[in-house]
Amino acid sequence: MKIVQDGRAPNPRRVRIFLAEKSIEIAFETIDIMTEEHKTPERIQQNPMARVPYLVLDDGTVIAETMAICRYFEAVQPAPSLFGRTARDQGVIEMWQRRVEQGLLAPVAHAFRHRHPRMAHLEVPQVAEWGEANVPKVEAMLDLLNGELQGRAYIAGEQFSVADITALCTIDFMKVARFSLAERHGNLKRWHGAVSARPSARA
Amino acid sequence: MKIVQDGRAPNPRRVRIFLAEKSIEIAFETIDIMTEEHKTPERIQQNPMARVPYLVLDDGTVIAETMAICRYFEAVQPAPSLFGRTARDQGVIEMWQRRVEQGLLAPVAHAFRHRHPRMAHLEVPQVAEWGEANVPKVEAMLDLLNGELQGRAYIAGEQFSVADITALCTIDFMKVARFSLAERHGNLKRWHGAVSARPSARA
Repeated sequence: MKIVQDGRAPNPRRVRIFLAEKSIEIAFETIDIMTEEHKTPERIQQNPMARVPYLVLDDGTVIAETMAICRYFEAVQPAPSLFGRTARDQGVIEMWQRRVEQGLLAPVAHAFRHRHPRMAHLEVPQVAEWGEANVPKVEAMLDLLNGELQGRAYIAGEQFSVADITALCTIDFMKVARFSLAERHGNLKRWHGAVSARPSARA
Repeated sequence: MKIVQDGRAPNPRRVRIFLAEKSIEIAFETIDIMTEEHKTPERIQQNPMARVPYLVLDDGTVIAETMAICRYFEAVQPAPSLFGRTARDQGVIEMWQRRVEQGLLAPVAHAFRHRHPRMAHLEVPQVAEWGEANVPKVEAMLDLLNGELQGRAYIAGEQFSVADITALCTIDFMKVARFSLAERHGNLKRWHGAVSARPSARA
């Protein structure tokens, strides 16, 4: 069993942190997406979407997509739970995980991929106007999350969850996309300090 | 307990089909997103992302995001399973559900929202060039899915799953976004006929 990944992209880091929180050790094969190593015939055959990370099981089954890999390991080893135990918790955590993914990670990624010269060969065509259109979406979501964190410790409630992993990896990824937390984001900064101090954050 | 929804958008239909497959009956409150009923102060307070559908539990807890609502009901009533039972099945189904969502539903939605005059007040700013950039992404994903369905009955394998629900709602939604299946998509058409014939498809 192994996970094919890139060492710098945010999605592989989400999986690494997820596994670290569960103390699961697994082999990683690290490739470089900037030189398009994920687009070789062998890789395309394994993952026709041409993305990393993806998990290859011992029987050859490929499980691609960050959250699908995490779901696999949550089922294999439920504790500590990162997707929630009760139906209510599972719903609320999935809600926040997706809000962060679609409301923050997606616009940060669009702004990065459509504005950065180094992304020109990976994002075809780059649409600069679309990149710019995502900037206020990022700012609005940071403000919303900062307000939510006024009343609670973690993104989805009082317990650390996969929603925190997505948010941490996104916020650390913001730098290359030329975003940063502002003075007014005090709650987000407090939260970022707490989740960054967990051993898993070094993964 | 109730679900706030719009009667025509694809995401509420995903939830309706999901519940129909599980024979779960629940109250729906139908609003009209075209007249921005989802943006009243009461709705924004319930779901600050200003989207439908969202579920309101009897204790007032709001669970928004289509897949979060489905996860809630999968946990409440696991059978018939639509997210998979074994770890492997859960991973593979989540992989395909997300591939369809990000590879087909997202580009169809972008093409629709950025090209259709009626969407101008909901998608600000509309970026026509970005809408156009999504057209070949839709075509490429339809081709990929058609190839995958050469060898199997359903999107994620031999069993109907939530990935089929996402794909069905997306393909039926393509019409308003000016996409349609082509002659070459024979496998997709066979699959579409089969899933459309399920009683749940009328939901």
